[in-house]
Amino acid sequence: MDTETFAARHIGPRADERDRMLALVGAADLDDLVAQSLPSTITGEAQLELPDPLSESEALTRLRSLAAENNPGRAMIGLGYHGTITPAVIRRNVLEDPAWYTAYTPYQPEISQGRLEALLNFQTMIADLTALPIAGASLLDEATAVAEAMTLARRTTKTGNVLLLDADTLPQTVAVVRTRAEALNLDVRVADGDLLDAIASHQPFAVVVQTPGASGRLAATQELQAIADAAHAKGAAVIAACDLLALTLVTPPGEWGADIAVGSSQRFGVPLFYGGPHAGFIAVRAKLERSLPGRLVGVSKDADGVQAYRLALQTREQHIRREKATSNICTAQVLLAVAASMYAVYHGPQGLVRIANAVHGAASALAEDLTAAGVEVVHEQFFDTVLARVPGRAAEVVQAARAAGVHLRLVDADQVGISIGQDATVEDLAAVRAAFGVAGDPAWRGPSRLGESSRTSAYLTHPVFSTHHSETAMLRYLRALSDRDFALDRGMIPLGSCTMKLNATTEMEPISYPGFADLHPFVPGADAAGYAILIAELEGWLAELTGYAKVSIQPNAGSQGELAGLLAVRGYHRSRGDEQRTVCLIPSSAHGTNAASAVMAGMKVVVVKATDDGSVDLDDLRAKIATHRDQLAAIMVTYPSTHGVFEEGITELCGLVHDAGGQVYVDGANLNALLGLARPGRFGADVSHLNLHKTFCIPHGGGGPGVGPIGVGAHLVPYLPGHPLAEVEGRGNGPVSAAPYGSAGILAISWAYIAMMGADGLRSATQHALLAANYVAARLTEHYPVLYTGRNGRVAHECILDLRPLTKASGITVDDVAKRLIDYGFHAPTMSFPVAGTLMVEPTESENLAELDRFCDAMIAIRGEIAAVETGDWPGADNPLVNAPHTQARVTAEEWHHPYSRRLAAFPSGLHAGPIGATGADKYWPPVARIDGAFGDRNLICTCPPPEAFEA
Amino acid sequence: MDTETFAARHIGPRADERDRMLALVGAADLDDLVAQSLPSTITGEAQLELPDPLSESEALTRLRSLAAENNPGRAMIGLGYHGTITPAVIRRNVLEDPAWYTAYTPYQPEISQGRLEALLNFQTMIADLTALPIAGASLLDEATAVAEAMTLARRTTKTGNVLLLDADTLPQTVAVVRTRAEALNLDVRVADGDLLDAIASHQPFAVVVQTPGASGRLAATQELQAIADAAHAKGAAVIAACDLLALTLVTPPGEWGADIAVGSSQRFGVPLFYGGPHAGFIAVRAKLERSLPGRLVGVSKDADGVQAYRLALQTREQHIRREKATSNICTAQVLLAVAASMYAVYHGPQGLVRIANAVHGAASALAEDLTAAGVEVVHEQFFDTVLARVPGRAAEVVQAARAAGVHLRLVDADQVGISIGQDATVEDLAAVRAAFGVAGDPAWRGPSRLGESSRTSAYLTHPVFSTHHSETAMLRYLRALSDRDFALDRGMIPLGSCTMKLNATTEMEPISYPGFADLHPFVPGADAAGYAILIAELEGWLAELTGYAKVSIQPNAGSQGELAGLLAVRGYHRSRGDEQRTVCLIPSSAHGTNAASAVMAGMKVVVVKATDDGSVDLDDLRAKIATHRDQLAAIMVTYPSTHGVFEEGITELCGLVHDAGGQVYVDGANLNALLGLARPGRFGADVSHLNLHKTFCIPHGGGGPGVGPIGVGAHLVPYLPGHPLAEVEGRGNGPVSAAPYGSAGILAISWAYIAMMGADGLRSATQHALLAANYVAARLTEHYPVLYTGRNGRVAHECILDLRPLTKASGITVDDVAKRLIDYGFHAPTMSFPVAGTLMVEPTESENLAELDRFCDAMIAIRGEIAAVETGDWPGADNPLVNAPHTQARVTAEEWHHPYSRRLAAFPSGLHAGPIGATGADKYWPPVARIDGAFGDRNLICTCPPPEAFEA
Repeated sequence: MDTETFAARHIGPRADERDRMLALVGAADLDDLVAQSLPSTITGEAQLELPDPLSESEALTRLRSLAAENNPGRAMIGLGYHGTITPAVIRRNVLEDPAWYTAYTPYQPEISQGRLEALLNFQTMIADLTALPIAGASLLDEATAVAEAMTLARRTTKTGNVLLLDADTLPQTVAVVRTRAEALNLDVRVADGDLLDAIASHQPFAVVVQTPGASGRLAATQELQAIADAAHAKGAAVIAACDLLALTLVTPPGEWGADIAVGSSQRFGVPLFYGGPHAGFIAVRAKLERSLPGRLVGVSKDADGVQAYRLALQTREQHIRREKATSNICTAQVLLAVAASMYAVYHGPQGLVRIANAVHGAASALAEDLTAAGVEVVHEQFFDTVLARVPGRAAEVVQAARAAGVHLRLVDADQVGISIGQDATVEDLAAVRAAFGVAGDPAWRGPSRLGESSRTSAYLTHPVFSTHHSETAMLRYLRALSDRDFALDRGMIPLGSCTMKLNATTEMEPISYPGFADLHPFVPGADAAGYAILIAELEGWLAELTGYAKVSIQPNAGSQGELAGLLAVRGYHRSRGDEQRTVCLIPSSAHGTNAASAVMAGMKVVVVKATDDGSVDLDDLRAKIATHRDQLAAIMVTYPSTHGVFEEGITELCGLVHDAGGQVYVDGANLNALLGLARPGRFGADVSHLNLHKTFCIPHGGGGPGVGPIGVGAHLVPYLPGHPLAEVEGRGNGPVSAAPYGSAGILAISWAYIAMMGADGLRSATQHALLAANYVAARLTEHYPVLYTGRNGRVAHECILDLRPLTKASGITVDDVAKRLIDYGFHAPTMSFPVAGTLMVEPTESENLAELDRFCDAMIAIRGEIAAVETGDWPGADNPLVNAPHTQARVTAEEWHHPYSRRLAAFPSGLHAGPIGATGADKYWPPVARIDGAFGDRNLICTCPPPEAFEA
Repeated sequence: MDTETFAARHIGPRADERDRMLALVGAADLDDLVAQSLPSTITGEAQLELPDPLSESEALTRLRSLAAENNPGRAMIGLGYHGTITPAVIRRNVLEDPAWYTAYTPYQPEISQGRLEALLNFQTMIADLTALPIAGASLLDEATAVAEAMTLARRTTKTGNVLLLDADTLPQTVAVVRTRAEALNLDVRVADGDLLDAIASHQPFAVVVQTPGASGRLAATQELQAIADAAHAKGAAVIAACDLLALTLVTPPGEWGADIAVGSSQRFGVPLFYGGPHAGFIAVRAKLERSLPGRLVGVSKDADGVQAYRLALQTREQHIRREKATSNICTAQVLLAVAASMYAVYHGPQGLVRIANAVHGAASALAEDLTAAGVEVVHEQFFDTVLARVPGRAAEVVQAARAAGVHLRLVDADQVGISIGQDATVEDLAAVRAAFGVAGDPAWRGPSRLGESSRTSAYLTHPVFSTHHSETAMLRYLRALSDRDFALDRGMIPLGSCTMKLNATTEMEPISYPGFADLHPFVPGADAAGYAILIAELEGWLAELTGYAKVSIQPNAGSQGELAGLLAVRGYHRSRGDEQRTVCLIPSSAHGTNAASAVMAGMKVVVVKATDDGSVDLDDLRAKIATHRDQLAAIMVTYPSTHGVFEEGITELCGLVHDAGGQVYVDGANLNALLGLARPGRFGADVSHLNLHKTFCIPHGGGGPGVGPIGVGAHLVPYLPGHPLAEVEGRGNGPVSAAPYGSAGILAISWAYIAMMGADGLRSATQHALLAANYVAARLTEHYPVLYTGRNGRVAHECILDLRPLTKASGITVDDVAKRLIDYGFHAPTMSFPVAGTLMVEPTESENLAELDRFCDAMIAIRGEIAAVETGDWPGADNPLVNAPHTQARVTAEEWHHPYSRRLAAFPSGLHAGPIGATGADKYWPPVARIDGAFGDRNLICTCPPPEAFEA
């Protein structure tokens, strides 16, 4: 009997606030604003067919019942996904804590020191365990990590185009690597038996070794060294796909010669989540660090010389390099990487060894018992996985175990795989034995079956891994870190193009339900019935909302969605014999990932110019089409544009491309401006990816997880990504993610959002997002010109504030304004994208008028400060803007020689104006002053510095 | 396959830290320390019989399965407990947030401004809804609130000793009031029909009106006015027991003449919890505020004139008044009051009206339908409860509804009560109708059945109730408030006598399980099978741990445990014809509640002196026994003593009292020093209450909930509290709490603690608690003399630091030191209890060595600061101690004229020494400077001040 709609909670402004905002922007009502803003050619469609909205309690009831329809049992299937125990203190204070999960990617490092420290811990953990010097801040999953390693190796070795895979590579890895390689014209060969023999008979640019193998087999160190030596002798790079927990006991890849190590950190306390999200990892030997894909946290110093963290080597990122990019990786898996790193912080090296020994001991005891009972155990050496040979009886054994609540791996008709995880109980082990017909009580520990592979080197020796082992200490560490950061739970994050809106608790709670959290991705379909319904409904709703024939939620990031979408286009053209259609038109204002994804999909990027008003230059488009008519594969456009404008020419643009035989890809990054008003699939697009972590309320998690589903027209449906280990009807392309349904574990968030908003609620949200952006534009344009507007002077859901004239006049840069906003208690808007020297503001529908006004007031006050620099009242080199942000250390120093006051430095909005408004103690303090990024790039340190480094 | 014991997570010091601590205190090992500390007469017992400890995941599995054995269904039983919808944002960010639940009672107001604001909101909400000017900050439950109102009325009217109760009073209220009244010689009469007639034929000192009644009947305003007038004409006070949600629609008690209003705020978003914890409320008319029992938050100002909150009128509290106390209420229900207040903040007055109308509309529609189908509806006017008459069929109807998942109230063989809550769904209503044999679809809204009772006055008009209605706004408000406070998630709270130790997440998570959270206390026993097991196991384990024959977990606070224990003693003596045994001996150092409880149990308090070393003066005891031998009912002692010492004479003391025919009550407040080492029930005590919120890990919740079970010897078992609505075998006294099992909803916390620690873990925890206290004593005694020690110079689990010589020499008081500790990042130890001018430090086993050292270092540094005052380096009126705590406002002010630096003011431990140690940004800042409590008491304001009041 809920009396409030969820929409009323999700949308920030109350009715009276809405009316005041409408009055200021000059619209009669929300519909009028829409009519003023959007081209009538794309609106005016029939009502969306979505179910009536559920109340919050109804949604929870429904999701609880869907979770109950899954049957997690105990997962002993292995294949890169393992049972683990999430420490409750980490579940509650990271995974379930808005201070962690509502944070944005740490592009503003001064307000991200907490999660940057956690990520540095992650990198240190990976570097230590792999014994390689440099590790990144996470990749999307193990399979894509191998694919990234492949391209990294390809860039750094010059030995042909053959990638050689170990025969014992995880099957989903093989499939993802094939998908990626095909478009890049790389030749993937899976060794047919012994890897050394295969190296001898090929000329690979890289060799992938899975250790332990998918079958559980653990190679001796000497064997791995021989493989590495043989590969290196041929000039090939060696990529080790490895298991973090095993690395606590066995020789790490860095010590047997691997150049690159990749894998998943899932089993470090991250729930199975039916396949994701989990943090993949990558570590490389020296000299490869500047080729590393994805994000890298490094140590630098701030303006006061204090050690500080920030993302290192950002010049490598796709948003800078565009069509020269070598990877389209953008979103990482920060929240999951944080959880995994905290698992290591909490257990420490000794604790991890105890866990690894327990897992290995149980596997070994099982092998002993099976052997004693006459069951053949295939591999002599293994870590956690026993491969048992039961000719003709495998299915029966797997079924018996399942009936007793344990999921085993049905390898083939004769073989069963049993992978032991940290969560296995003595009852589970008894059930496994019983399934094989072995009686008696299970033993907990058998003799070591690690063979000649024992690790001797130390790891996790940094004090952070041995300081927080009591729960009290852990809790305080987590709180202290999150307190250093600014996330949505403190105030607005008006980041253009990022849609930082409410991540409602009702959306978030269900991901912790055991029925959703503890399911292995490769259980039989009948055991995932709840997920099947949830996914089918979500895909159906997304298709309805976007006007496409079909949606696939497999891509686990926007970048992967782009790739999957372009591969669908590629598949379509090739099916029609149009192999030559490889030109992808991309407007100059596009997201950097667009170009990078096109390159990865084997396309050639041709840039289309923008007109002075920021729109796609249709004349240039015609010219480019004329030049490349027969080669035209697609155009990738963002709608509304990355300039925050509803371009009037979109319908014409689609027509021009279609007429030339090309496909239209509409980037869904700005869907928050369209939902419920217009549908890309109906106004001319053939394919789009959506960002569930923008429009559909999956939290940014401090830089991931993301989910990037694609929607396609009917003709592209056959080219949606499939998966070798799941029946995905009629979806013929290879997979782009390791798990069949990508980051399935967080789909309940978007499901709940749509289910609770309903069609009217979603439309209202979009209208309020437009209203908020136009309100901000209206209040600020006299202080900072709004760079681009569309019809009737309207912006879409975001607006670009042009600071270039100010910068020219005063020397004050966007960077200065962004950092000064920290003193005012804000996360900065997007800086210098898509236009250098500007700020792009996206307020979203979730901010109420008080917060919008607080932001506008701050920007106006900053404009006044800039004026004081312009007039010379404050020197250009010493004013609150260039000195921002101001730390506690500065404003409490004995000496104060600035031409402005301490109060103005730290409390520019007044002492009693925090986000809530009551008291100065609500102020957010940046833990460090402005960070010198270049210093860190010159002196690259990407693992935890010793504590002494932080001494004042 | 957990490889870590929970004990290793619960206990702070690692093995190497423990050894360093042992070395410093001079003990070979933990057993040696125990042998040095405790009298050998009380130790050396056989091993405790507890199950082997569960791992954290095993405990969660077991609790999940116990929760599943309860059958909450939909609760429509009523009787003061109603289905409600907890807003998810409040569940996650209050009830499940350590920043809220690990906070202590706001006795240090400077670091408690967040929860004080929330409590002020609660008081404003109660005052507004009841239309009475002053409301307290919560009581334990509705039944005890009526009992407290009774004694309040008795103190303020002088019209005999008869309390007259409405015939339609909740049955558990009648029972609790009878329990309380009996010992106080008050005569409780329940009106036999019309209340006006009953008033006419009695001379009551107070009249209790339940409205709406237990039967659902809603009296018209005029009828209530007539009752109030009649009562007042006889000089009696009028007590209204009322329903908060109904008050949004009907005339509030303050407008029809009630002097006192009480009730429960449970239905404002607080889970049913099988009866508790919930926040009871009380509001009074003008002139009664200084007689109000329990805590009262008031507005005052700080040293800089800034408006600030703090507990008002603390002189009324039992810890000051002792044997002159008029109530023993101490712990409140802060966490639940915060949740209920936030429900009002989130819904606002309009939202509450919508909920109330929905509830009433559904009840009214049901009544229409029943009537139309020929079922008699007994009352014409009602709010949410329909009383249906089905002669001879009531049990059958209730059973049919239960089979369909709805719990109704079986009033008697002929009548069924149906109470509609906010959580009722259309399916539930259909099930209810079907149970009565009514077909067709249920209507959602019938005609108003409120009769002549409509409310016209406004309420919740303060802006706080209309500002935070979007989830984003609510989330930020909750975060901002909790950020103002210092709780265990930031650092140590070394409060002597309060045992602020880890409240582990694994202990906390299960209380949110629907099987535990959503159960109504009066469901049939078969539907509470999981709770029955949990409670039986917990009571059994507590009995084993304390050496008693039996434990009752009913008392929902320590104070209620004391009362229940003393009533058991009273019952025992009376059963033996010893009515004259009413003298209760209480040592001078006892907790204030002891004396207050004795008074409430109808006893006469006789104080026993202490010797110079702080022990009970056995000579004085002998003398007092000699004087009162025939009247001796009991002695109440705390063991180890409130002086933090294991008194050697405890065995002799017990013997002396027993020889005189008295009973020995050992207050369990200090059980954290005994558990696993000695058992009160075996070393001479007859009865104890335990504080589950101290020793057994229930969090303090910012000032409640608490749980205060009692353990008794076999001869007292017949006098344990029973309950009229639950079969509690052989427990013959009346109930002391509204619900049969008190705060059942949080018992899983203590269950989990014991289950996961096991006997060895609990003993180890106790040993570490002793070690930590002795370590602090050893490090600090040369700076601050430890006032009392026992054998071998040992303290127990806490130690008293004597500041009186310092105060004499320097003028620096305990208050100054306590406030200065805030600047160092600590919650102060207990101030001036049990000895004025001292600090009592209890570090607990959960603090690791780094935090213990941080505290000791801070105290030593403060001693240095005091020395600078003594030597005159700093003036007595201007130094960092008397000026503490230092706010951001002060240290960022333009002017700074103190003889010490800004840095020393705010960062006395250095800029980079927070609780975690990395950066100044980890510093906790008090939002206000030192608060002037007396000002607030002189100018009593106990509802939200207008926002303008906070302007600088």
